[in-house]
Amino acid sequence: MRNVWEYFSTRNIIFGNGSIQKIDKLLKRYNAKNVFIITDQGIVQAGILEKLLKHLKFHDYQFVIYDQATPEPPISSVLEAYSFSKNELNPDVIIGLGGGSSIDLAKVVALLIEYGGHPRDYFEEGNVPGPITPLIAIPTTAGTGSEVTSVAVVNDTENNLKVGISDNYLRPAVALLDPELTIGLPPYVTACAGIDALSHAIESYTALEYKHINASGDILFQGSFPITDALALKAIELIRENLVLAVHQGNNLKALENMLAGSLLAGMAFSNAGNALAHALAYPIGGKVKSPHGEITGLLLPYVMRYNYSVSRDKMAKITQIFSPHNEKPEAIYAAADAVEELLQDINLPTKLSSLGIKEEDLEEIASKTVHIERLARNNPKTPRKENLVELLQKAY
Amino acid sequence: MRNVWEYFSTRNIIFGNGSIQKIDKLLKRYNAKNVFIITDQGIVQAGILEKLLKHLKFHDYQFVIYDQATPEPPISSVLEAYSFSKNELNPDVIIGLGGGSSIDLAKVVALLIEYGGHPRDYFEEGNVPGPITPLIAIPTTAGTGSEVTSVAVVNDTENNLKVGISDNYLRPAVALLDPELTIGLPPYVTACAGIDALSHAIESYTALEYKHINASGDILFQGSFPITDALALKAIELIRENLVLAVHQGNNLKALENMLAGSLLAGMAFSNAGNALAHALAYPIGGKVKSPHGEITGLLLPYVMRYNYSVSRDKMAKITQIFSPHNEKPEAIYAAADAVEELLQDINLPTKLSSLGIKEEDLEEIASKTVHIERLARNNPKTPRKENLVELLQKAY
Ligand SMILES: [Fe+2]
Ligand SMILES: [Fe+2]
Repeated sequence: MRNVWEYFSTRNIIFGNGSIQKIDKLLKRYNAKNVFIITDQGIVQAGILEKLLKHLKFHDYQFVIYDQATPEPPISSVLEAYSFSKNELNPDVIIGLGGGSSIDLAKVVALLIEYGGHPRDYFEEGNVPGPITPLIAIPTTAGTGSEVTSVAVVNDTENNLKVGISDNYLRPAVALLDPELTIGLPPYVTACAGIDALSHAIESYTALEYKHINASGDILFQGSFPITDALALKAIELIRENLVLAVHQGNNLKALENMLAGSLLAGMAFSNAGNALAHALAYPIGGKVKSPHGEITGLLLPYVMRYNYSVSRDKMAKITQIFSPHNEKPEAIYAAADAVEELLQDINLPTKLSSLGIKEEDLEEIASKTVHIERLARNNPKTPRKENLVELLQKAY
Repeated sequence: MRNVWEYFSTRNIIFGNGSIQKIDKLLKRYNAKNVFIITDQGIVQAGILEKLLKHLKFHDYQFVIYDQATPEPPISSVLEAYSFSKNELNPDVIIGLGGGSSIDLAKVVALLIEYGGHPRDYFEEGNVPGPITPLIAIPTTAGTGSEVTSVAVVNDTENNLKVGISDNYLRPAVALLDPELTIGLPPYVTACAGIDALSHAIESYTALEYKHINASGDILFQGSFPITDALALKAIELIRENLVLAVHQGNNLKALENMLAGSLLAGMAFSNAGNALAHALAYPIGGKVKSPHGEITGLLLPYVMRYNYSVSRDKMAKITQIFSPHNEKPEAIYAAADAVEELLQDINLPTKLSSLGIKEEDLEEIASKTVHIERLARNNPKTPRKENLVELLQKAY
């Protein structure tokens, strides 16, 4: 039994339409003169980078730009960005501008700038020695919550491994969230990102309570506690009320605003409480198919909720209340899971693993690998054995 | 119209039974060797100070103790503690151990140690130049939330003024919350502290939305936004489910734990969103009678809720849902306010101003003073004129 939780937060969280113009004020807080910007081609072409540069130029900052971030950045890309920054300027602050992958890349580069070495040196938990170079994270999608989390996913292509480097020191110093930067994304991108945020919210809300996590010493994912419960539940509400709108009305600024707030709160929650079984299963599945991370976690979510139902009745009833406030039996078995499945259909995402290209004979292997992803599996309110997972995967197939 | 909110948080929040033993680990984070402890006689006599000292002695810290904190500390007490610390040791870290007043005193002393001067130099908002000496706040009551807030109330006895020194730099570096330290308080103390926490939660939950606050530039109390809504609502739930138990069963550790979490979350919420009319009215009333702060804010709360009802229907209905989940008409007018009034009776607190010793002829003056407490009055969802306040006070009389 664990007695104590500790809540970790990004130091500065600034949110609002037009808040990109606060960048000067924020850079001043960190006495920054030289800024290294990490972003991707989509952001450049959408004109979003220019919105940032306008302010940097006006206030006479020195900056260099690495604009070659790609989804789940390979190690080669980390090393490229790192050596680029070393040759070009000595940055006081790094800005990660884009989706989760630009921000994840910026986290690992900020780590290398501060402590040198190779990304592989930090794969093992506990290897980050101290604070990284101050990072300002500016998300342009509402999904990963990377702007406030302690995790960066990189792709070790040589060893064919997706790895999360995880440490509380990896949290950005500043999360700057401007909903106007998220206008006009393709519906599929908004759908995958948004359903991932919902997965974070629901998985951390229903995560095992911190007292019952089976681990000793300092752990990153501590199980649920009152602060994470509060944030996760509000995130579920924000996402439930706005995701379908945001997908189908890509210019609905009010919906985008609430989705960005929802993914932020979900990130604050899961980076303390931890995700659970849907995310654990998504790792081996993600190794087999090219689907975006959110498509996989979202697809699995209703099946995981049904599996967990018997030990999470009260919390599932609260989720049902949010999804169907006029449901007369919020305790109705599976009502919350059914509602999430309906949401998936409303935003045109798949609900069966077979449609992702997974083969039925892969399910055993996926189940075997998942039980060994301890930091996520032990967070699940119900402890899964391999047979349970095979059964769950067959239902989802 | 304001576009942007910024969420401010205490850097380290650690919570749990027995968490006092983490003090060594926390002091190490700040490279502390010399520790200045600020506490009061009640804490000494209850043996709580000794629990802290045990750990400091075991790990060989140098420390000195100022144990003369009093409720709403007078300036003389601030100066006494400050000069005491200057003469005795050069502290790396200050520990505030006790109720809100010990922690408030520690905040102002930490400010003086860092920047010198006199408390009056900092009465005006914006005068705190930068970070104060790192402060570890260890609350022993569940009420003010001072362990995470940006406010310290001191008493300028010469000028007969209670003043809040307010600045985001005044937030403690560490909030260390050990529910076991709150065992065995007198019911009246638990009641007053707990109802104050409920006032913080309800006032910040129903505070005007940040977009509509009528002020420009940086302000400390920004109105409600999603993070504060999430924290405040969870705080209301925790307090509603545990306050009566905590008052009547002073050793019920589960209830005390949830009350301490509730007052923490309420502190996180109101120190960003801000309190509103009940707290504004409590200032001039507190100048006239000796009642504890919580007795006053708690008494006023139902009347303020009824006054605000017409512009806060949705949020009031959510509060009703928490107080009476089986209420078939959660939108029933005043249901939330009536539930809070019932709670006051359950914990034996007064519900009428007349029983505090306020005179009817004082009501006009109280109303006049209140409309000028702008940072709280403008936060109220309904803008009060003096006549409205006189009417409200008469109902509460
Ligand atoms: Fe995810
Ligand atoms: Fe208060």
